[in-house]
Amino acid sequence: MWSYQAPLRDMQFVLEHWLQAPQAWSHVPAFEALDMSLAVQVLEEAARFSQGVLAPLNSSGDRQGCRWNAGQVSTPDGFAEAYRAYVDGGWPALACAEGQGGQGLPQLLDAALQEMLYASNHAWAMYTGIAHGAYLCLKTHAAPWLQARYLPEIVSGHALPTMCLTEPQAGSDVGLLRCRATPEGDGRYRLQGNKLFISGGEHDLTPNILHLVLARLPDAPPGSRGLSLFLVPKRLDDGQANAVHCDGIEHKMGIKGSATCSLVFDGALGWLIGDANRGLAAMFVMMNSARLHVGLQGLGHVEAAWQNAGQYAAERVQMRAPSRPQGASAQAADPIRYHPAMRRVLLELRTASEGMRAIGYWTAHLLDQAEHDPDPQAQACAGQLAQLLTPIIKAFFTEQGFRQASNALQVFGGYGYVAEFAIEQTLRDSRIAMIYEGSNEIQANDLLLRKVLGDEGRAFDLLLAVLRTEAGQGGQCAACAGFADALGSLCDALARVVEAIRERALEDSEYPYRAAPDFLQLCGVALLALAWARAARVSRALPEDDPLRAAKLQSAGFFFDYLPSRLAQHLGAIDAARAALAFV
Amino acid sequence: MWSYQAPLRDMQFVLEHWLQAPQAWSHVPAFEALDMSLAVQVLEEAARFSQGVLAPLNSSGDRQGCRWNAGQVSTPDGFAEAYRAYVDGGWPALACAEGQGGQGLPQLLDAALQEMLYASNHAWAMYTGIAHGAYLCLKTHAAPWLQARYLPEIVSGHALPTMCLTEPQAGSDVGLLRCRATPEGDGRYRLQGNKLFISGGEHDLTPNILHLVLARLPDAPPGSRGLSLFLVPKRLDDGQANAVHCDGIEHKMGIKGSATCSLVFDGALGWLIGDANRGLAAMFVMMNSARLHVGLQGLGHVEAAWQNAGQYAAERVQMRAPSRPQGASAQAADPIRYHPAMRRVLLELRTASEGMRAIGYWTAHLLDQAEHDPDPQAQACAGQLAQLLTPIIKAFFTEQGFRQASNALQVFGGYGYVAEFAIEQTLRDSRIAMIYEGSNEIQANDLLLRKVLGDEGRAFDLLLAVLRTEAGQGGQCAACAGFADALGSLCDALARVVEAIRERALEDSEYPYRAAPDFLQLCGVALLALAWARAARVSRALPEDDPLRAAKLQSAGFFFDYLPSRLAQHLGAIDAARAALAFV
Repeated sequence: MWSYQAPLRDMQFVLEHWLQAPQAWSHVPAFEALDMSLAVQVLEEAARFSQGVLAPLNSSGDRQGCRWNAGQVSTPDGFAEAYRAYVDGGWPALACAEGQGGQGLPQLLDAALQEMLYASNHAWAMYTGIAHGAYLCLKTHAAPWLQARYLPEIVSGHALPTMCLTEPQAGSDVGLLRCRATPEGDGRYRLQGNKLFISGGEHDLTPNILHLVLARLPDAPPGSRGLSLFLVPKRLDDGQANAVHCDGIEHKMGIKGSATCSLVFDGALGWLIGDANRGLAAMFVMMNSARLHVGLQGLGHVEAAWQNAGQYAAERVQMRAPSRPQGASAQAADPIRYHPAMRRVLLELRTASEGMRAIGYWTAHLLDQAEHDPDPQAQACAGQLAQLLTPIIKAFFTEQGFRQASNALQVFGGYGYVAEFAIEQTLRDSRIAMIYEGSNEIQANDLLLRKVLGDEGRAFDLLLAVLRTEAGQGGQCAACAGFADALGSLCDALARVVEAIRERALEDSEYPYRAAPDFLQLCGVALLALAWARAARVSRALPEDDPLRAAKLQSAGFFFDYLPSRLAQHLGAIDAARAALAFV
Repeated sequence: MWSYQAPLRDMQFVLEHWLQAPQAWSHVPAFEALDMSLAVQVLEEAARFSQGVLAPLNSSGDRQGCRWNAGQVSTPDGFAEAYRAYVDGGWPALACAEGQGGQGLPQLLDAALQEMLYASNHAWAMYTGIAHGAYLCLKTHAAPWLQARYLPEIVSGHALPTMCLTEPQAGSDVGLLRCRATPEGDGRYRLQGNKLFISGGEHDLTPNILHLVLARLPDAPPGSRGLSLFLVPKRLDDGQANAVHCDGIEHKMGIKGSATCSLVFDGALGWLIGDANRGLAAMFVMMNSARLHVGLQGLGHVEAAWQNAGQYAAERVQMRAPSRPQGASAQAADPIRYHPAMRRVLLELRTASEGMRAIGYWTAHLLDQAEHDPDPQAQACAGQLAQLLTPIIKAFFTEQGFRQASNALQVFGGYGYVAEFAIEQTLRDSRIAMIYEGSNEIQANDLLLRKVLGDEGRAFDLLLAVLRTEAGQGGQCAACAGFADALGSLCDALARVVEAIRERALEDSEYPYRAAPDFLQLCGVALLALAWARAARVSRALPEDDPLRAAKLQSAGFFFDYLPSRLAQHLGAIDAARAALAFV
């Protein structure tokens, strides 16, 4: 049956060896008190919570789903108790500033926590997933009194926030939003309008829900420059219900334990966050955090898929395999993990999961550096890199989440298609992540048009420099030299392809839009190449008899064997995109 | 909302122009009475049934699912009435021989019928989908009295057959089957054992169900050479219930209206079909038919996905597109079908659907030639080709079914993830087809190891000859010359890759197993290249003002633009597979 064990060993490897995070922490006053042993303690606690409390509710939550009744939403059995345990454990405060009642731990540890939450129960973690983004948004943009009033509720977990963007006619295009906000004259506003697909818009986990709502002021210009952001609590300070209600929840393909709500704001009272008509900028603080989170959902799904497929493939016997591991004796039928097609899938799952972990955690680590690094230039570079990586993490990771869940399902054969083994749930749950918080197509345009071409390649050059530095260290170990060489060639190819796109775009301004999806995939594969070149190299620091040492080299070997075919696919498609695309 | 219109125009194009089927029919005595106008009548009737009766039950059947109660299975509301209409329409008899009470129409028309049934309601069509294979199996292997007794029931649709292979411990590996058959001494056998994942193992559509069951005789050798095939009816001729019952149905990811049953044979009476211990050969007659059917499920899903995504993309407006079709005026937001990422997806959907249709129908047409062509050599060649194509159709089409359903879902954005639009159902339904009737991994091994390498390339050379003949006809139209050239180069690449695999296999016998999955994908892409080179060429015969003429050229252009990147991916992976794969 479906199960989840937090991959603590690999998480530690990434923190300690791949990122050398303890060294970085020691240079940062904010993390002075943090060392590897404390980090491991935090991870072990998070693992206990995820494995012991959330994972057992994953399948039952899917079966039961949420129920809507006259505006009230009941979450599946056990969800509310799990949330109380989460609050009691102090998890909402993990990466919040100490000055705000938080624990002041790095985003990096929060990323590991989030991976575990999403892997063990994506639907449940939808309720908590937006909280850190809302915290950052309020902290950056809200008036001091509003911060003082509401930040402690978020940090403590006593209230949960939502992110109210989408309306029936406005999904990817926020410029089409119609929700209106009318000033009351006393600093308050009355909101009127319908919001759709609001995760956690109503539930029974917390007494109050803090809606962050994009709406238009009476004199606002049309389009996305006329949006303002408001905080609209479900309950007002006098204990009265605010004029917002949930008039239905969606019946979805997956994450059925997460309440996806239609909200009606019917003169609900709220407060402006940040400046009038600058709501999108404020919302983007939240959105960027959410996009990294969504990427971590993809990572969580790949990890869960890998664990469950690996276990099933070791237990299920079918047919003789053409070869066996040394020492395994011939039997009437072999474990299916011996069969070549299954070996390839299992290696794909493992390299995707571990490679994505390194890259996802690196992005969170960059966010920490961008906030806390004592060197202002290092701070700026880290911020630029994190911004560049965010759309790749969001889109590439979520596509991998879905693809590897499907690969894992295939390992189970017919058993994969039935609810009992729940791998089909992983596949269903994973699919939403390619859509929400900016569809993967939006991410591809954001990456290529805004963050690479729009930035004149500055951030992209920073990324190439990181890749080239890694490629230059191949001499450190004979076994890794080939990986480093391949990474070096890939850097040249990346530089060439960006240049070619830039040139072509001068005469065909639509070309970057056509090339964007494959360019993003190419960047994702390049990041995995960085992950595996470095993982192989730094694994040499592990003791000779540590099985992880051999496994990392083995995985890197597999990854680099198949790298050329992946590059050829995406480079070829970027080239093919030169041709005009018909309107059908 | 989800809807389905049978693509009659394209079906006709394939029959009349791509296959030139009427010419072929005119040379075959069995089809003398058949011409294009009769064929179109049949297709139109099938379309009316699929659109009018089945499609409206697709979503409701998914929501309601099947119910099991004390051994009885109720299908969703409307399924039984739809089945009666199907029987009344004479559809079960379509491609059965006239001597058996059938209509004697070609497999080719049956393939078009099946595509429509699967596209409009995959779950419902699971009940009828196996019937033709069972008909062929009985007709080829059963004793005359058994044929006389049971064939008319299948041809008339008064009873539905099942295919009872899988047991809990034996999925891909039929050699592990344990079900036993004990002779009664009077020509009857008593069957004992448990069968799993039996589609339509119990239902309320017909009074009798004819189970075709693989089991072992008392003296049978172990493994797959000790299997015999039995016909075990649910009801015996005296009206008594046979000792077989359904002890549960599966809760599945999709095709929820199809009852997937656990069957217990507890001394049930049955009769041997064909020779003792030759059950697998007899079953394979059924299996080959089933595999083509499963491929047509993939085609049906791609078509349904394409239609629904195309319609949504024309209606939904979001953001300004970087360019618009000639004559379209600028608005605040454009239909999303103008956006480059959506245009690419829509073209992918259309080229996959129409390309697969040509190839799928061609395979059915080859089966007709293999049965009826007056020239024995043509008969033999057609049979060899159909056998070679079957695993490609099964695996490549079903993978496309799932992939394109996911592509289509993405077009819908958040609406794609909710049940209301039912495109998520297409995705869920499509996933099973990659697993059953021989997993796609089994198909890949069957193709490369048995049908290409095992056959010393004879059938594969026949396929190459077809491709080369098409490539040689590029001179017929200037617009198509580039497509023909690309197809010619592809033939050379295919010949080289088979030769390289054969050589390498001499020193590394596991290599073909590692290369098989990508080899199958490569062959699938090559078949699409054949489809589009020929479609472009023969579309020149359409009137100048027929929109299909321009659309076919446009689609072929798109397909061949992106062909090199697809070939590079699979050729690269076949090359990468030279490296050993670790055991994880």
